[in-house]
Amino acid sequence: MIAQEMYQLGASRSCIRELFEYGLRQAAVVGKENVYDFSLGNPSIPAPEEVRQAFSQLIAREDSLSVHGYTPAPGSMEARSAVAADLNKRFGADIRAENLFLTCGAAPALISVIRALAVEGAEIMAVAPFFPEYRPFVESSGAKFTVVPADTQTFQIPVAEVEKRLTAHTQAIIVNSPNNPSGAIYSPENLLALGEVLTRRGAEYGHPIYIIADEPYRELVYDGTEVPFIPNLYPNTVVCYSWSKSLSLPGERIGYVCVPDQAADSKALYAAVAGAARALGHVCAPSMQQLVAGLCAAVRPDLAAYDENRKTLYEALTSYGYRCVRPQGAFYLFVQAPGGDAQAFSNHAREKNLLIVPGGDFGCPDFFRASTCVSHDMILKSLPIFKELIQAYK
Amino acid sequence: MIAQEMYQLGASRSCIRELFEYGLRQAAVVGKENVYDFSLGNPSIPAPEEVRQAFSQLIAREDSLSVHGYTPAPGSMEARSAVAADLNKRFGADIRAENLFLTCGAAPALISVIRALAVEGAEIMAVAPFFPEYRPFVESSGAKFTVVPADTQTFQIPVAEVEKRLTAHTQAIIVNSPNNPSGAIYSPENLLALGEVLTRRGAEYGHPIYIIADEPYRELVYDGTEVPFIPNLYPNTVVCYSWSKSLSLPGERIGYVCVPDQAADSKALYAAVAGAARALGHVCAPSMQQLVAGLCAAVRPDLAAYDENRKTLYEALTSYGYRCVRPQGAFYLFVQAPGGDAQAFSNHAREKNLLIVPGGDFGCPDFFRASTCVSHDMILKSLPIFKELIQAYK
Repeated sequence: MIAQEMYQLGASRSCIRELFEYGLRQAAVVGKENVYDFSLGNPSIPAPEEVRQAFSQLIAREDSLSVHGYTPAPGSMEARSAVAADLNKRFGADIRAENLFLTCGAAPALISVIRALAVEGAEIMAVAPFFPEYRPFVESSGAKFTVVPADTQTFQIPVAEVEKRLTAHTQAIIVNSPNNPSGAIYSPENLLALGEVLTRRGAEYGHPIYIIADEPYRELVYDGTEVPFIPNLYPNTVVCYSWSKSLSLPGERIGYVCVPDQAADSKALYAAVAGAARALGHVCAPSMQQLVAGLCAAVRPDLAAYDENRKTLYEALTSYGYRCVRPQGAFYLFVQAPGGDAQAFSNHAREKNLLIVPGGDFGCPDFFRASTCVSHDMILKSLPIFKELIQAYK
Repeated sequence: MIAQEMYQLGASRSCIRELFEYGLRQAAVVGKENVYDFSLGNPSIPAPEEVRQAFSQLIAREDSLSVHGYTPAPGSMEARSAVAADLNKRFGADIRAENLFLTCGAAPALISVIRALAVEGAEIMAVAPFFPEYRPFVESSGAKFTVVPADTQTFQIPVAEVEKRLTAHTQAIIVNSPNNPSGAIYSPENLLALGEVLTRRGAEYGHPIYIIADEPYRELVYDGTEVPFIPNLYPNTVVCYSWSKSLSLPGERIGYVCVPDQAADSKALYAAVAGAARALGHVCAPSMQQLVAGLCAAVRPDLAAYDENRKTLYEALTSYGYRCVRPQGAFYLFVQAPGGDAQAFSNHAREKNLLIVPGGDFGCPDFFRASTCVSHDMILKSLPIFKELIQAYK
């Protein structure tokens, strides 16, 4: 007999994945160059040269077991120390190697933290728009997933709406900044206001309410905007990170959980994260990738190509009459759908081989997401279609 | 508030890990060369040269995204096709790429299969001696873990004991051959007898009882012994594999689940495995490791060093009067503890800086495990201690 919940999770595809696969099929019919695929958040710039050098250097080592052997479950001390040093240098933080737990990317990092907090009756909150996988991550941990509706004017966290939804069962709120899909970066004022509410209500309930800071897009920032290091603003913050986007290594599955000392019950929470990881089958993160992350802890991506794509698409779309908050980070545009129904709009676009993701699964059914981690040439060729599509609604 | 079950899993250490860490501390006191550490199952031979070449070749590729980019969740088609072709060639099987789901090693492979079968009230069985992590894998999936006591004369599967413990709730039995810790390889006759019972009782209960074949030691075999490919003997078999031991890549986290077409409800089970993996935070297995596994699908390890260790330790220990079945596979010796209490014996050995793992967590409290994936020199130097220890019991 087969567990139906698992079957459903495996048999159902995300709408992003479905669109992408439609694009591959359609490319076979009309030619790859005639499909304008804005569906995936897959880095389009190569890994930095330092990454290649780090891999080469490791593979050249005489002693292959020092590269490919088991590391302790939390990860290589050498790699964790390098990452901690980089965080401390950049953010004036006080992170030690012992606060870091290296994982197979951000997904198991998030799930480990969620499970570490998934006590009986737990509620975990997310602010729309949010990464759709948060829902199965929370629900398959036995916790209740609570959604805070988006402030679609600013895409900052609507703190009053958060407060309305807090209950004595709320264990954590997932905060994703720079945000997928809106590209918003939550301001220090916004985060401090959130922290104030969480502190006050946590005291009232008699237990901490954690921020789970999901930060795969931390280094993907434009216009010189700063991304606040949330543990500096609210102590009960656990950070989940991935090098997928920053070093263009999405397939390599390397990320971390950081449980800073100042977080309430820091040591017990770290142990519970380790325990949850163990229950997920974590043995260690891929060892060579750990060492590469350590060697490249201070390497930042060259964002020129993403920035050019962002500007071109943002300026063209707004000039055609689309409404969209200018993204400050990540590599997406989140655009209000003409006509108000993003699913219908995405369907129309698909008829013209333009693949954009309707925002329903992100908690914003009237917006669509267009990835800007694509070729600049494809963007230029797609513009007449975007223009034509909105004209039909005027 | 912190989930206590997760905290316990994270705060408690396996006795293997505890011994290993004791050894590191003791080495700092008495010198590394004076600690005889037989605790870990960590490959001691380097990765084959073909592995290094495969990594080098991938890193030299111009297009880094074709190496480091996301693959589909089940894995690169190129890699899966190569692995399927190798299985078919060796075992006359009929595995397609679509039957394989690449994972971050054997642990998440096993957990994905267990969760795919963990319906309400499910029982999952293991035969002693068994890998101790099976217990948390099963119990954290909500299923009941049932242990079949070992046949310590032959270390084959005691089929009558299995049959006594089957119930209408039994969903699967985990079969680990070559076995950690006994080194036994279950014979075709033994597996056919098991299959006959599972077929008969499954028909009675009205649902299949799967074999979950945990095969990380498949290629670690001595004396020309053959390891049966269990799907050829019992159709409802799902195979979990890892390249950790065979290619000496334990840190790199690459393995697979194989759900052959002939397994009952094959497609639904595969989907449920994929769904369970998604709930565990699986996005894809490390992409470079996938490609290396594909490129090295036909590479087999050079076992000369393990074989020499096995012979030396087996012959010496049995000549001193220890009782032990000669291991045919893996890289362990599983030895009856003089005095009958392996915990006490391990404690005595530890006082002499000899680290051997008591078998309680493996389901055999009167046996200890000694890893033979160690240096030959260390084995030779440890022999007088083994001799002295047993003399105290005569």
